[in-house]
Amino acid sequence: MARIVMKFGGTSVADLDRIRNVAARVKRVVDEGHEVAVVTSAMAGATNQLVAWCQELSPLYDAREYDTVVATGEQVTIGLLAVALQTIGVDARSWTGWQIPIRTDGQHGKARIDAIDGAELIRRMQMGQVPVIAGFQGIGPDNRVTTLGRGGSDTSAVAVAAAVKADRCDIYTDVDGVYTTDPRIVPKARKLPAIAYEEMLELASVGAKVLQTRSVELAMKERVRVQVLSSFTDAPGTLVVDEDEIVEQEIVAGIAYSRDEAKVTVRRVPDRPGVAASVFGPLAEAGINVDMIVQNVSADGTTDMTFTLNKTELPRARLVLDEKRDEIGFAELATDPDVAKISVVGVGMRSHAGVAGTMFRSLAARGINIQVISTSEIKVSVLIDAEYTELAVRALHTAYGLDVA
Amino acid sequence: MARIVMKFGGTSVADLDRIRNVAARVKRVVDEGHEVAVVTSAMAGATNQLVAWCQELSPLYDAREYDTVVATGEQVTIGLLAVALQTIGVDARSWTGWQIPIRTDGQHGKARIDAIDGAELIRRMQMGQVPVIAGFQGIGPDNRVTTLGRGGSDTSAVAVAAAVKADRCDIYTDVDGVYTTDPRIVPKARKLPAIAYEEMLELASVGAKVLQTRSVELAMKERVRVQVLSSFTDAPGTLVVDEDEIVEQEIVAGIAYSRDEAKVTVRRVPDRPGVAASVFGPLAEAGINVDMIVQNVSADGTTDMTFTLNKTELPRARLVLDEKRDEIGFAELATDPDVAKISVVGVGMRSHAGVAGTMFRSLAARGINIQVISTSEIKVSVLIDAEYTELAVRALHTAYGLDVA
Repeated sequence: MARIVMKFGGTSVADLDRIRNVAARVKRVVDEGHEVAVVTSAMAGATNQLVAWCQELSPLYDAREYDTVVATGEQVTIGLLAVALQTIGVDARSWTGWQIPIRTDGQHGKARIDAIDGAELIRRMQMGQVPVIAGFQGIGPDNRVTTLGRGGSDTSAVAVAAAVKADRCDIYTDVDGVYTTDPRIVPKARKLPAIAYEEMLELASVGAKVLQTRSVELAMKERVRVQVLSSFTDAPGTLVVDEDEIVEQEIVAGIAYSRDEAKVTVRRVPDRPGVAASVFGPLAEAGINVDMIVQNVSADGTTDMTFTLNKTELPRARLVLDEKRDEIGFAELATDPDVAKISVVGVGMRSHAGVAGTMFRSLAARGINIQVISTSEIKVSVLIDAEYTELAVRALHTAYGLDVA
Repeated sequence: MARIVMKFGGTSVADLDRIRNVAARVKRVVDEGHEVAVVTSAMAGATNQLVAWCQELSPLYDAREYDTVVATGEQVTIGLLAVALQTIGVDARSWTGWQIPIRTDGQHGKARIDAIDGAELIRRMQMGQVPVIAGFQGIGPDNRVTTLGRGGSDTSAVAVAAAVKADRCDIYTDVDGVYTTDPRIVPKARKLPAIAYEEMLELASVGAKVLQTRSVELAMKERVRVQVLSSFTDAPGTLVVDEDEIVEQEIVAGIAYSRDEAKVTVRRVPDRPGVAASVFGPLAEAGINVDMIVQNVSADGTTDMTFTLNKTELPRARLVLDEKRDEIGFAELATDPDVAKISVVGVGMRSHAGVAGTMFRSLAARGINIQVISTSEIKVSVLIDAEYTELAVRALHTAYGLDVA
């Protein structure tokens, strides 16, 4: 017997039939003798409608009123799911964020969970009752409803799992697990039985958006064992756990890619102390995040700086830098939106040399030029011409022995 | 400068354009220098959709979960209206039932308001802020959302008006006031500038459903001055107030009719003590309300009892009485659904004789047979054949001098 938090996203509760399916799935787990709490999103489309109404009334809507409106989506689902569960004989009771309460900070529209008192939920679960909890919402210090930002229900589920000391947090989605890479690009991609928190975070940050990043960070911090699995099949999913729990650890867990970045090169900047600050300071002040950075020294006392940022920020970044042109003293600003970032991720890299070398050789063998390189303890990323994305991902997937047998 | 509670029903906030109209109307009252609080219903249709979902999942849905689901309708409206008000420069803030809190008893789905703490609302209004309050909902002793039953937003508005000691509670509806009778039957019906609480109650109970009965009872108890007016025009409406406030009191305020009742006659019951109890006891136990009652004594030691009840209860009443036939000892059960109840209402009756006489003479002059008569201090009601309804209402409207000049 285990204590399990089951989380269902918007497509899993999109209409009454799907809500009934979710109820049946919860009942199966209850009937196996487990203690269960459920966290749900709003019915697919509901949140979009509520957001659209707020935006139509005022593009500069008050975030506190936005939260009041948008949080109703989950409140509808928890009530309906509780009724659906009761109808098939499962003792269930709905809980809004303010009822538990799920205390958050006061950043309306993108609040962070501060604390959840799990005592009453645990008491109910021990009695055999299934708490059905609204995801994505909490209550702020101002006694008003807060929402966690889009996709926040994953974070709610992990936070609830930590609060009730659950053995596992099962996140039901429209994919059936985490793969070694995008199966649309590599048909031989394998579903991973398990992946370490750190790997999941690196994969999420480079585009494999199975779980919201914040939920993985929280799971890692609170040591919540997470399982990603499909709400439409019964296959086991992927466990996201501490790396110590993964018995047969591969050196490389997966290959990720992102086409969301653009490359900026500031040419012929005077090569003197403080020049990096003069370039990146104004960008940071404008709230523009910079990702990969390289600097080449040239012979004539100038240097070229290359970096990447989110493609959508490119026009704004260009404005900011052009304004500071004289101050920074660069000769030319070159930008290239047609780039892709390819990353090899795996906690095994910490103890195995040669991972980066394999990557560079594989890409060179296919004539793919590497424009920028950046590395972390468990990741090697390269920036390449976007048109080589699929070729690169497939080559690396094979090179690291990830192809399905 | 006055303190005013403005209440808007579902048709007044049916879409974003109408919500903007409501905001503009609130702004006009604020700009006149008044302190304003707003109470709103859900967008027209929203509540029906939410109720339908609950019913489709389970006709025997848990009322606590029903309340959780259905109360979201008003929560959406208050957030949107607060945004619409802010957009045109009115300081506004939404309030759900649990935030104020509006404390109710624990009868989920049909709760009654126990107490509202108006202190914080008054403080905000004095600061110039407009509280936008969800009607129809509160919070029960179990810390769960309760709803007041359909139409409960009128009651919410009156209760809020009492709690903030408002000078007036303006109820915006799709009619522009209370008329001397139904203008669809009598084109010469007049809009009343004012009507006494007791008169409004009697009119509501016989089918003139401008305000929810419970809201009028509460207004009378708390001495809240209510105004019924149209949300689509700027004409003044009808004040519902203490009779002492009405200067030019007519003897008869209005003529009401109801086709919702059916007549039941229990023939040849033994005429002995306790026989009324033997008939009406079982009906009361079955939750069936009986309205008008007459008893005729016949010569042979038996009596006929005639009474009316809501037409929808007729089949159930017949079942209940047939079951008790031997016990009661009646010979025959006759029912007639084709009846109408016509009522003449006015607090002036207390001090003026002859009101009933005028009624009987007018009906007799048109050959309309009276089947049952019942009277209260401020009302005379008669049951007649339904096909004479319009004729009777028009005749009485003229007889009491209510026709527009």
